[in-house]
Amino acid sequence: MSGFGFEVLARSRRARLGRLATTHGSVRTPAFMPVGTQATVKAVTPQELRQAGAEIVLSNTYHLSLRPGHDLIRELGGLHRFMGWDGPLLTDSGGFQVFSLAELRRIEEQGVRFRSHLDGSEHLLTPEKSMEIQAALGSDIVMAFDECPPAGATREEVAGAVERTTRWALRSREAYTGPGTLFVQGGVHRDLRERCAAELVREGFPGYAIGGVSVGEPQPAMLETVRHAAELLPAERPRYLMGVGTPLDLVESVACGVDMFDCVMPTRNARNGSLFTSLGRVNIKRAEYARDERALDPACSCETCTRYSRAYLRHLFQAREILGARLNTIHNLTYFLGLMQALREAIESDSFAAFRDAFVDAQRGEEEEDAP
Amino acid sequence: MSGFGFEVLARSRRARLGRLATTHGSVRTPAFMPVGTQATVKAVTPQELRQAGAEIVLSNTYHLSLRPGHDLIRELGGLHRFMGWDGPLLTDSGGFQVFSLAELRRIEEQGVRFRSHLDGSEHLLTPEKSMEIQAALGSDIVMAFDECPPAGATREEVAGAVERTTRWALRSREAYTGPGTLFVQGGVHRDLRERCAAELVREGFPGYAIGGVSVGEPQPAMLETVRHAAELLPAERPRYLMGVGTPLDLVESVACGVDMFDCVMPTRNARNGSLFTSLGRVNIKRAEYARDERALDPACSCETCTRYSRAYLRHLFQAREILGARLNTIHNLTYFLGLMQALREAIESDSFAAFRDAFVDAQRGEEEEDAP
Repeated sequence: MSGFGFEVLARSRRARLGRLATTHGSVRTPAFMPVGTQATVKAVTPQELRQAGAEIVLSNTYHLSLRPGHDLIRELGGLHRFMGWDGPLLTDSGGFQVFSLAELRRIEEQGVRFRSHLDGSEHLLTPEKSMEIQAALGSDIVMAFDECPPAGATREEVAGAVERTTRWALRSREAYTGPGTLFVQGGVHRDLRERCAAELVREGFPGYAIGGVSVGEPQPAMLETVRHAAELLPAERPRYLMGVGTPLDLVESVACGVDMFDCVMPTRNARNGSLFTSLGRVNIKRAEYARDERALDPACSCETCTRYSRAYLRHLFQAREILGARLNTIHNLTYFLGLMQALREAIESDSFAAFRDAFVDAQRGEEEEDAP
Repeated sequence: MSGFGFEVLARSRRARLGRLATTHGSVRTPAFMPVGTQATVKAVTPQELRQAGAEIVLSNTYHLSLRPGHDLIRELGGLHRFMGWDGPLLTDSGGFQVFSLAELRRIEEQGVRFRSHLDGSEHLLTPEKSMEIQAALGSDIVMAFDECPPAGATREEVAGAVERTTRWALRSREAYTGPGTLFVQGGVHRDLRERCAAELVREGFPGYAIGGVSVGEPQPAMLETVRHAAELLPAERPRYLMGVGTPLDLVESVACGVDMFDCVMPTRNARNGSLFTSLGRVNIKRAEYARDERALDPACSCETCTRYSRAYLRHLFQAREILGARLNTIHNLTYFLGLMQALREAIESDSFAAFRDAFVDAQRGEEEEDAP
């Protein structure tokens, strides 16, 4: 756990301003982590990530272990060097990916058997194997291997998954010998989450993730879960809400005391032409933008907004040009990371409540405008 | 023809060092023009083009007239502003694209009827229409509308095409009222090319293009045509060899006195993983590069070669990541544009013959190594 630390620097209501220290530098929280699934955040360079405001990147154990292989990355000096990102890296455990992507998955106490979505080859992912992969990658923040029950799972199934996740967290800690630090994640149902959190907190991990949310439930239900989960976790440890979410989700979760987020939304939506701006969402393929000379977001200072028009972005999207994916990604990341910066400033000046109210109002106004 | 000029500054054997002046700045020749078919050189920004050494970009009349439409681009201030490239732009006539891409094309004296490859809509491209489109785009160098006979055309068919191209060149000149300057292009067969060149030279155009080569004929035959064609053209005018070619083609054509080139080879090959280096071609998908920590080209100072390994480029290619297309394109353009710079320096120091001999030897050595 060399070099790891977390400090809460300020509070505004339940929202926390903090600093996460790793051997590859520190991260200001609340932090958003762009997702670099295959050792690249799709369409952008590490320099562009820095420019957009990224301080930490997430990458995926499942994908990298299958291609190009974690042994290869270790031989080449680790993931930081391989992808040219010298800042902090967090890797997921592979659990969620195995459950959502792989074929023929079968859960055993030992781990999960699955077939690769790339070539159908059979693999066994265990807590020990997940730790070996994440250590080979040289990750700064390593996630304990978890079982991720599907959205429609019964209470009994979730209970089984929670217990197994707890056992697997301890096996993960036992097995991990890499240079990074280990986070754990918990389950869904209120009482089960309480039991899970109590056990994991008693065991004392460096950081805690809230998993099993944002799997299709309505936003109020998700926020209720997040609020409850955050209360169960120790105040002096970072809280990481996995796979979340929309800008509004981020603001509301920061309000619950969450410190870290990751989501493919800014990058995936960018490639689909769905752009986040200070004036609301822009679906760049719409005909109304064909002759629109304005910057995508007049309040944004990213390369995309300072150099190109909405008309050009629409043309690139319609013509399926790679440059369109690039420029859209740069903008969406700048928007998400700029929102985190604004949240940090609001907490520092103890004006978070006002910021949140204004943001929620603006989002509501936008939704009403979008309505038919 | 405001702002246009061409000056030959030095000669080394038949190779010429020159300067082309346009209202958007000057271009050192011999020059290679990256191809920006749809108002973007695929995968890269204008800033990256500059960084790679590009001084002029080619764009396509056919594509832009269909999408987003030349009227739209004119309304938005022209192609330079639309795509964010403030340097010189050359546009082709649309002739070659209509013949190679469109469906149901029918040649009439008036022009060419065709159906769009995008939506099947019917269009008529005439010399007058081509000029209207290129003027709307605000091109700096405009190409006269030509008939481009297919590779297997009979002598009679080529003769008809040459005569029509000559008539269309005069109609193009008559019709063109834009801010740029007009180049013409000629045919294939030796005597027909002589007749075509004689007529067009007598008419006196600002620049001359050699078309109808590089359509599948062996390299010696192509170079024989280029050598012959270059001799037919006035020494004081720029000579543009359309759609050529490999690095060796460029060197050998400069040896014939050609001043300007365009080709999709560096950009298209980049996206296919075929990379040009000082050590020879690299097919980056090959397994031998999977663990290769070296820079793609140790002699290259581009972003790709200074920041990333061959192993990483191979992984990006295998994983079909957009960043791979970007980094490969940046390198290949840097290689092609760096070769042009080396050619210019060799001409300036009157050491072109030695440069050419060394280059041809190196290419031969490479071909032998590639042989089975």
